[in-house]
Amino acid sequence: MTSVSIREVAPRDGLQNEDPIPTEAKVRLIDALSDTGVRRIEAVSFVHPRAIPQMADADEVWARVDRRPEIRYSALIPNTRGAQRALAAGFREIEVVVSASDTHNRRNLNRSTDESLDDIASLVPLIHEAGATVEVIVATSFGCPFEGDIDPDRVAGVVARVRADGADRIAFGDTTGMATPRRVKDLLSAVRPDLLHFHNTRGTGLANILTALELGITEFDASVGGIGGCPYAPGASGNVATEEVVHMLHDMGLDTGIDLDRLISTAETAEKLLGRTLPSGVLRAGPRTRLV
Amino acid sequence: MTSVSIREVAPRDGLQNEDPIPTEAKVRLIDALSDTGVRRIEAVSFVHPRAIPQMADADEVWARVDRRPEIRYSALIPNTRGAQRALAAGFREIEVVVSASDTHNRRNLNRSTDESLDDIASLVPLIHEAGATVEVIVATSFGCPFEGDIDPDRVAGVVARVRADGADRIAFGDTTGMATPRRVKDLLSAVRPDLLHFHNTRGTGLANILTALELGITEFDASVGGIGGCPYAPGASGNVATEEVVHMLHDMGLDTGIDLDRLISTAETAEKLLGRTLPSGVLRAGPRTRLV
Repeated sequence: MTSVSIREVAPRDGLQNEDPIPTEAKVRLIDALSDTGVRRIEAVSFVHPRAIPQMADADEVWARVDRRPEIRYSALIPNTRGAQRALAAGFREIEVVVSASDTHNRRNLNRSTDESLDDIASLVPLIHEAGATVEVIVATSFGCPFEGDIDPDRVAGVVARVRADGADRIAFGDTTGMATPRRVKDLLSAVRPDLLHFHNTRGTGLANILTALELGITEFDASVGGIGGCPYAPGASGNVATEEVVHMLHDMGLDTGIDLDRLISTAETAEKLLGRTLPSGVLRAGPRTRLV
Repeated sequence: MTSVSIREVAPRDGLQNEDPIPTEAKVRLIDALSDTGVRRIEAVSFVHPRAIPQMADADEVWARVDRRPEIRYSALIPNTRGAQRALAAGFREIEVVVSASDTHNRRNLNRSTDESLDDIASLVPLIHEAGATVEVIVATSFGCPFEGDIDPDRVAGVVARVRADGADRIAFGDTTGMATPRRVKDLLSAVRPDLLHFHNTRGTGLANILTALELGITEFDASVGGIGGCPYAPGASGNVATEEVVHMLHDMGLDTGIDLDRLISTAETAEKLLGRTLPSGVLRAGPRTRLV
């Protein structure tokens, strides 16, 4: 292993869990991220504005972004209407979420896990016909805030079903920061994803990534500045901060394509755009190579 | 490996880097920690009150603490006068610091590393004669904020010298949060300590501990609530939070003797005593087993 692929999720997953910011600020954030060398950005979601007001201007944001040919931009969608909007907007990487936890799926999507799996089965051909790929994000893979531990076999069952139904890629989401090194080992010994999405809610973010690296996983989500937060623990942090992830990876000699100084500058910009102190140690203290 | 020994350092190392709090608050913090099941507490330091005003009341704090026979309490000292005070107060575990970085040692102790090593050589017999043990904490072992990377061979040289001079135990201090999993591997392949003291300044705290565990280290410092902070990066976090460490260790099936719920309650108490929001995810969000 010599390189790791980071997908920057602040513009979508991060901002979805923050107070709304203006369209112009979202465009500025995505364009600044595009300048860091990151190769993948989750840009927007196409959801109903009543469900997620933070993403109500997704079409306008995307129309104004300075899109780079070398960057893979993705969009999250919840249903057929969202898929149609994303495809019409030109996205060729589509993400869809299902929770391994039935309770969480019902709270999040108002249907059972099985019903969501049926929805995904009918979305896949629609997206494939348009020449796009489908990534299924399995939420609560490392635990559910309502049900507690999730049996790895249940996650494996969801993965088997969506793979059979044509999903191109699988991500495991640590939706509320319940992943730990032990749970990463337990789950990955049962079933392997393409990409892992960790939170740092309980301080284990980088320890989880380290564990996953040792198990051969090379694709991770991260959010500049740790933008996001945890919907079930007000004031707690959510997504791992991209600059903390990149700082550790580069120190290990792993390439990400990202310029860490530019990334930290982008985190500083993000902090101003959001108007709050972001939970990132590398943003506060700089990289370990920055001397007094 | 079935258990890990945690030394709680908030009362000394933590409070030394916070605004001063009343004597009564310090006593309350130590007594609350003693109730958590933790087996080792760094209680005070005996330093000149002009150098560290936060520890000016060390004798009074220690006199009022409800000392438990099952807990090992330690004190840090900078010189002969400090050693005499600590021994007179009854401490039988004495810590002394030297920096692997000459520049940091001069800034911190106003003498070269070699001069401090000579001081330690004369302190050891004094402490041993009183029936106490000496732990040498090698600061800046993972990097220096002035000099940058520290060659593991230099740390190994310091360790060889103090061991030859009779030190009973060695700790490596990650003084400004420059340790990473890669640096932990690099240093421990050259020389091994008894105990590791990590900071979480750049988010790598638990990843560092995980790496050290895999290399067989079973003793770690930690500070309840992450009390402390980084002297060279205002607003950045310092010591790893004890409850985050214990949360990860217990999830791995490793025993610490600590009651995590009581520890989190103590972190809540500490937050009130200090009057500021402490940097601990497990304090904010609770353990992963706490459901909505």
